[in-house]
Amino acid sequence: MQTRIAILGYGNIGKAVEQAVLVAEDMQLAGIYHHNDNLDAIDADVVALCTPTREVPAFAAQLLKRGIATVDSFDIHGQIYDLRSQLTPIAKEHQAVSIIAAGWDPGSDSMVRALLQAIAPKGITYTNFGPGRSMGHTVAAKAIPGVKDALSMTIPLGTGIHRRMVYVELAPDADFATVEKQLLADDYFAHDETHVIPVPSIDALNNVAHGVNLVRDGVSGCTHNQRFEFNMTINNPALTGQVLVACARAAVRMRAEQRHGAFTMIEIPPIYLLPGDEEQLIRSLV
Amino acid sequence: MQTRIAILGYGNIGKAVEQAVLVAEDMQLAGIYHHNDNLDAIDADVVALCTPTREVPAFAAQLLKRGIATVDSFDIHGQIYDLRSQLTPIAKEHQAVSIIAAGWDPGSDSMVRALLQAIAPKGITYTNFGPGRSMGHTVAAKAIPGVKDALSMTIPLGTGIHRRMVYVELAPDADFATVEKQLLADDYFAHDETHVIPVPSIDALNNVAHGVNLVRDGVSGCTHNQRFEFNMTINNPALTGQVLVACARAAVRMRAEQRHGAFTMIEIPPIYLLPGDEEQLIRSLV
Repeated sequence: MQTRIAILGYGNIGKAVEQAVLVAEDMQLAGIYHHNDNLDAIDADVVALCTPTREVPAFAAQLLKRGIATVDSFDIHGQIYDLRSQLTPIAKEHQAVSIIAAGWDPGSDSMVRALLQAIAPKGITYTNFGPGRSMGHTVAAKAIPGVKDALSMTIPLGTGIHRRMVYVELAPDADFATVEKQLLADDYFAHDETHVIPVPSIDALNNVAHGVNLVRDGVSGCTHNQRFEFNMTINNPALTGQVLVACARAAVRMRAEQRHGAFTMIEIPPIYLLPGDEEQLIRSLV
Repeated sequence: MQTRIAILGYGNIGKAVEQAVLVAEDMQLAGIYHHNDNLDAIDADVVALCTPTREVPAFAAQLLKRGIATVDSFDIHGQIYDLRSQLTPIAKEHQAVSIIAAGWDPGSDSMVRALLQAIAPKGITYTNFGPGRSMGHTVAAKAIPGVKDALSMTIPLGTGIHRRMVYVELAPDADFATVEKQLLADDYFAHDETHVIPVPSIDALNNVAHGVNLVRDGVSGCTHNQRFEFNMTINNPALTGQVLVACARAAVRMRAEQRHGAFTMIEIPPIYLLPGDEEQLIRSLV
């Protein structure tokens, strides 16, 4: 039987979820909804919340109260546990499941970090992002007066240190030196090495590629110098959309097992993310 | 409350489990047993089976029948699902949990493979092993007449293809050309590029280092060229011992949740492998 999945929000991520659903044999698209639509109209087993991250908590609560499972890629790291605490009692009361922070970071990277900490408990994990666009920094740059459009690229320098390459398309009459000074003083940029570069068109630079280099050098038992590295270079919305679909599958499975509540990806068995026969998966992957 | 863990078998892996237990704040060593000991003497929450892999099924069944959880690093890939099928009804009947094939491959690598298949469902995963000693090939080399001692190193050539570097210490009067010919014809070596090298002492070459380079180039939704890579260079028994301790923790937790049965690592939430407070783990890892 197929899982009926609806999409709420139809930006980059919503479109990527649609593509991932259309090629998933165990999924059936149960509608695409705008975030201004009436949520009561949604009839689905699970809803992928592809709205801006700050709108996720309210939409998730509303759907969970109707017993509908939700998945989201809420990405404000410092607030993920609080969101889980907020949604857990609602999900439990309505026999529903919510999988939160289901993207690649937070998300699949979190699973790798948890695994590496388990198998080398002492040590430091460095997550190096990019090269790729930072949404938060791009929004901050766009908010500077005199900036018509902007793009902030995150460049990994290792050991979790990043350079910000900020491309700005100036408004007519804007003064670059003034824009640059104000941007460098902004709290988003003041703590990192930041370069501001004027360009004639931000649109010409558009690219949704991103990457991660996650490194752990740790200790297993009393043996030091255990070295681990996880790298990826990916299309950002395509990966996020695929992770959401994988987590939608896990949410439905957990509800079938009466394991209600809100969960992050490190609380999910990896096999729940996969379609297909359990025996076949274990034989081919283990 | 600490988990009381006993160790059955005291070779390289048993010693590594002991070291990992001694530095784990949530674990208490409940005894080290030889595989000829009377298993009825074992009093523990969970037993790490560190015997030769072929002895694992019988020991696991015997302990599960007493309601004691077990973890093992059974490593014959083609027989893991069968072992799971054999132990599951025993574990369920006696309200016990067994986590099987809990090493690094099968084991933690399996979790990475499952995750990567979930987030890029179409594509090929290549697991490249080494450089490091292959136990199976070393045993096969030692069985060749005229070989006093041997060491078979696995060298990764990429795309899952491996070279075998077989170091042999000859018995007195053995003829190298005869040994080499017989070894190259052995089914363990006949299908791979294999080099046989006579050395005066195998002991002088001893090194438990190993490595993995796991690569997936796949498709998320309809977006190709999603590239992932997982690398590690590790002390082999130290990592295996640490994985067994992490899985012992997961086994006790799953029993507490009444989730009885036999499980591979891809069926376990990564957070179950970790000690400590749930909130703290989610805040620091997700």
